[in-house]
Amino acid sequence: MRIVFRPQATRAQIDRVEKLLQQLRFRYRRSQTADGTVIGVVGDTALLTERHVQDMPGVALVAPFTVPYKQASREYSPSSTVVQVGPVRIGGSDVVVMAGPCSVESHEGLFAVARRVKAAGASILRGGAFKPRTSPYSFQGLGREGLELLRAASDATGMVVVTEVMDTRHVDLVAQYADILQIGARNVQNFDLLREVGASGKPVLLKRGLMTTIEEYLLCAEYILATGNEQVMLCERGIRTFETVTRNTLDVCAVPVIHRLSHLPILVDPSHATGEWRYVLPMARAAVAAGADGLMIEVHPDPANAFSDGPQSLTPEHFDQLMREVAPMAGALGRKLDRVPIRSRGDGA
Amino acid sequence: MRIVFRPQATRAQIDRVEKLLQQLRFRYRRSQTADGTVIGVVGDTALLTERHVQDMPGVALVAPFTVPYKQASREYSPSSTVVQVGPVRIGGSDVVVMAGPCSVESHEGLFAVARRVKAAGASILRGGAFKPRTSPYSFQGLGREGLELLRAASDATGMVVVTEVMDTRHVDLVAQYADILQIGARNVQNFDLLREVGASGKPVLLKRGLMTTIEEYLLCAEYILATGNEQVMLCERGIRTFETVTRNTLDVCAVPVIHRLSHLPILVDPSHATGEWRYVLPMARAAVAAGADGLMIEVHPDPANAFSDGPQSLTPEHFDQLMREVAPMAGALGRKLDRVPIRSRGDGA
Amino acid sequence: MRIVFRPQATRAQIDRVEKLLQQLRFRYRRSQTADGTVIGVVGDTALLTERHVQDMPGVALVAPFTVPYKQASREYSPSSTVVQVGPVRIGGSDVVVMAGPCSVESHEGLFAVARRVKAAGASILRGGAFKPRTSPYSFQGLGREGLELLRAASDATGMVVVTEVMDTRHVDLVAQYADILQIGARNVQNFDLLREVGASGKPVLLKRGLMTTIEEYLLCAEYILATGNEQVMLCERGIRTFETVTRNTLDVCAVPVIHRLSHLPILVDPSHATGEWRYVLPMARAAVAAGADGLMIEVHPDPANAFSDGPQSLTPEHFDQLMREVAPMAGALGRKLDRVPIRSRGDGA
Amino acid sequence: MRIVFRPQATRAQIDRVEKLLQQLRFRYRRSQTADGTVIGVVGDTALLTERHVQDMPGVALVAPFTVPYKQASREYSPSSTVVQVGPVRIGGSDVVVMAGPCSVESHEGLFAVARRVKAAGASILRGGAFKPRTSPYSFQGLGREGLELLRAASDATGMVVVTEVMDTRHVDLVAQYADILQIGARNVQNFDLLREVGASGKPVLLKRGLMTTIEEYLLCAEYILATGNEQVMLCERGIRTFETVTRNTLDVCAVPVIHRLSHLPILVDPSHATGEWRYVLPMARAAVAAGADGLMIEVHPDPANAFSDGPQSLTPEHFDQLMREVAPMAGALGRKLDRVPIRSRGDGA
Repeated sequence: MRIVFRPQATRAQIDRVEKLLQQLRFRYRRSQTADGTVIGVVGDTALLTERHVQDMPGVALVAPFTVPYKQASREYSPSSTVVQVGPVRIGGSDVVVMAGPCSVESHEGLFAVARRVKAAGASILRGGAFKPRTSPYSFQGLGREGLELLRAASDATGMVVVTEVMDTRHVDLVAQYADILQIGARNVQNFDLLREVGASGKPVLLKRGLMTTIEEYLLCAEYILATGNEQVMLCERGIRTFETVTRNTLDVCAVPVIHRLSHLPILVDPSHATGEWRYVLPMARAAVAAGADGLMIEVHPDPANAFSDGPQSLTPEHFDQLMREVAPMAGALGRKLDRVPIRSRGDGA
Repeated sequence: MRIVFRPQATRAQIDRVEKLLQQLRFRYRRSQTADGTVIGVVGDTALLTERHVQDMPGVALVAPFTVPYKQASREYSPSSTVVQVGPVRIGGSDVVVMAGPCSVESHEGLFAVARRVKAAGASILRGGAFKPRTSPYSFQGLGREGLELLRAASDATGMVVVTEVMDTRHVDLVAQYADILQIGARNVQNFDLLREVGASGKPVLLKRGLMTTIEEYLLCAEYILATGNEQVMLCERGIRTFETVTRNTLDVCAVPVIHRLSHLPILVDPSHATGEWRYVLPMARAAVAAGADGLMIEVHPDPANAFSDGPQSLTPEHFDQLMREVAPMAGALGRKLDRVPIRSRGDGA
Repeated sequence: MRIVFRPQATRAQIDRVEKLLQQLRFRYRRSQTADGTVIGVVGDTALLTERHVQDMPGVALVAPFTVPYKQASREYSPSSTVVQVGPVRIGGSDVVVMAGPCSVESHEGLFAVARRVKAAGASILRGGAFKPRTSPYSFQGLGREGLELLRAASDATGMVVVTEVMDTRHVDLVAQYADILQIGARNVQNFDLLREVGASGKPVLLKRGLMTTIEEYLLCAEYILATGNEQVMLCERGIRTFETVTRNTLDVCAVPVIHRLSHLPILVDPSHATGEWRYVLPMARAAVAAGADGLMIEVHPDPANAFSDGPQSLTPEHFDQLMREVAPMAGALGRKLDRVPIRSRGDGA
Repeated sequence: MRIVFRPQATRAQIDRVEKLLQQLRFRYRRSQTADGTVIGVVGDTALLTERHVQDMPGVALVAPFTVPYKQASREYSPSSTVVQVGPVRIGGSDVVVMAGPCSVESHEGLFAVARRVKAAGASILRGGAFKPRTSPYSFQGLGREGLELLRAASDATGMVVVTEVMDTRHVDLVAQYADILQIGARNVQNFDLLREVGASGKPVLLKRGLMTTIEEYLLCAEYILATGNEQVMLCERGIRTFETVTRNTLDVCAVPVIHRLSHLPILVDPSHATGEWRYVLPMARAAVAAGADGLMIEVHPDPANAFSDGPQSLTPEHFDQLMREVAPMAGALGRKLDRVPIRSRGDGA
């Protein structure tokens, strides 16, 4: 349900409605739009009818949601959500870059990459400690040891850490070490896991599944939001199509579509989408040009010898180039790369 | 690695190799083919080379697997796997039918459906106690109470019970009540869950994901097999394509493809694939005609008032018709519906 | 627009409406259903309102079509269309089999295959004279010479001939030799070609495109029907999906879906769909079990040396087996293979 | 076959090889790369072996193509193709914009749009005279009258004209009026039409099909190139996937992939891909950021009343905004919009 106020509604009128919502213990969010105030409400909205909210002074309209995902919708919150994680703001005017290796493999490698990507302008360190691998015979990640390394590397560099959690039984463990809990594409509809990361209270990065429609995807986000945890970030990482020249097909248009349908930040991971490092740069530029709130990029000091996903990992040098090329795209949209001074011009494609 | 014996290899020669595999604590399976004996082996196969197995008397060939899924492959076991659950054999000459409501809703409804589908020839009762629902606001299942009802209905009718488990933390609970643990399409690559149901030792019905290639699907089965649990059944339930006139596209050809690549039984669920009851009958016939080892069918006493998936549920009357129509298809392939005497002819389409 | 008559409408009442439609030069079709007579009408239906058809005696309802494809819809003609080509009836109680080589290559090869498939029960000879090849460097067909060979082989065996036409400029030429004009999957939305084969007055076999939804497909049929040519047959031949273990994914469910939405016959081509001969047999069985009105099968005397599509071609021996396996599936549905006596039982899978 | 010369090969050595190719009437193309000269050759390359070309002075390597599309490949021509149409160069350093209405509807509307898009920086006028419509009952275009209007509007504004041809019998007619012949997505594998537009000698804009892989797409281009017509431009316009929130999924990554595999220019049509005007702007930015050589944009003076595709058409005002937003993206890559002075900064998203 959303409550739309008249443009001339007074602050006192709006406050009165808000107070009622608090008394009735509704979950709600208040947004200021060009046309006035809107309050999105979830809960047993029959109560609102009972209390005649639509006849309260200042109220123009009380309307049900037209989409099934409610709390994830722009109808609930016309104002965009900004997720604050330590000093980093995701969903605001900055384009935020998460970078690091696919898997955490060693202390030296991780620290080296963390320093390099930090220097190039990344503010969030990514790396896998628990790895979802297609084959049971592939490297499955370092587990707790990987988490410890990630925490140490992030503390050393002043970065924020994001890492994946795959099992409800590991949420507490991962939450001890990570600043952001990542749900991978294969678990996007692992509903128990969504509830559990929601309940952890930690910021969540929810990656889109390979075959998740955008409506389904926003309903997955709704599972987390429904726990009361509002710190949800989305991430397009390629969908599965008939085309096999790239690993998946990056649905760049998901960025403006999600910005229209939802208030949640939307990032893009061109590394997993393309599966090949040489396409990561142009797709990172395209993502930022389309309005993405951030990027997630795999960087490895020695891609040829990575334990996983080497072919899609950038070298630190290529990552430097990516940051230089992406900066003017952000600048053209009036945004900037988090912590990166916008340089005069990229080095070309 | 598979060890292929010469056609004229003696029993003693084969036993000697098998004994060595036991001593070295390998996991292996022995199959008899028209051309002789084959033993599939997984584990540290370098040991086999070290012990010069390929020079042992009777051995024709020691060859690595050509596919990544090893233990799920026909190379590992040329003989088809038959999973025995109570009195029911899945993967043998009978076509086995699992039937019941999408969700367990009430004692009366469940018992009524169980009796009806049992009478029509189904030997396995299906029903959801934990439901994976796209929206957090949809009915999520009765949980433990649903499990109790399923057990009671199955005990009353002498049926075997299959039900879904969605969370690693629920595997023990569900295993107390169910005879077969089902992994749903959305959890097909929930690797921790696969390991956990594998470790439970219970037979597992693993449904194909909407986006899972057959190679990936067999690798998911491999996660379970790799725990030592060999009682794995597969189930095609429709894949996601561009076509929207049906909910998903039933990949009937997955049946002969999986029979060629793997020794595991493959069932078909036309209810979820089509999403519409009127297509369930012809697709059930097609599945059996293509060689499916079984069917999984949703039946509800009053589909219009089902808590979930009503439009795809058959009435008990339609289910009777399905069983009559499917029987001659099985018969034409020299199979029969489990417990169903083959009647003279189906009632037509 | 469809005109539904009351169950008790008299013949005279119905004839009066039909006479009016003739005077006004409407295209229409009259069907007898269990509930009475229905006349489907296309043209400027405002005239029907003007002439107060809905107030005429015996008329229960005059309703617009609810689907965009009108003349191809079941609403237009509740009675199924049977296309008669020489002695062969497609869409009736028989299951009709079209068989022959992918490309016409030589006199000997073609005649040998024609005799074999005829003997096994096929009534229609297929073969390509103009071939749509993905690469310009592949064999493109024998053209006119191929047409002459097809005609001769068909005259020698008493079979009906179907062959593909790819270019509006070739319609007259192909129509001189062939009994049925085939439109290939890649030309399903070549609208000028659809109009031209429609105008030829010849029966048309319209294959579904790899990317064509069923609604779009029926609209393609509508292009032909709109020329006044009612002899249209449909053919499912696999759609393109993410799965690559088979060439395409045979959408078996298209058979009952099209039977519900349209009155046109629907055949299935498992050869192109699977791309591999060993899956052709089970998919042929599945297609007939799902209710297909016919099959289109590639047969080559020496598949390993075929100029095109060898891997998917059956040998004549395998084709014999296919006919034996498919016959009981047809029999179970109360149908029979055209010209094939139903034998006691298939040889199994 | 490609002939790679040693870095130190002399001009005379290279000329000698080229002269031989001319004598033998080969089709070939000479490119200068950073590592030296490469000549791509198609034809009966056994002759090159016979004449011992690989032993000629200066020649480092004579190697077969590793891809099936030969003349469309980067191996044939490491240098990018620039298509010159009147004053417009496509594939060079400028980003070229084609704009205009979906269908030509009237003199006034067309001239008004042509003047507006010209003023905003478009150099090529697009508009449909022959329209491929899903339904036979939809507006099918003005035909010859539409062509006359397009020519007149283009002469009046000094623009180049591109329009679609759908039938081999219309190629001569359309070629009389248009500067560039467009092959639409549905005809991408209409091989007779490809040969015919190739033979016309006119520049060709070949749109990708909704389900054409990039390899198949380059083979379609090869059909045109194989006629000797080298003026081929490619255009990504969205592929069909499971996602339905947009009409198709724009495969932005096709841009860098095609730039890597082929020397042909690649444009992007975000209007047809998204089907909704509000997503055209961000996708145009993304396309240019990914390196597209041009854009194709639908503009209509009154989208709500367009005969076709209104929802995806921009108003002239939105088109002005698009050009302002896209310019800095091109600038960041060291390119400029054809005829558009790069302004200081876009107006944001």
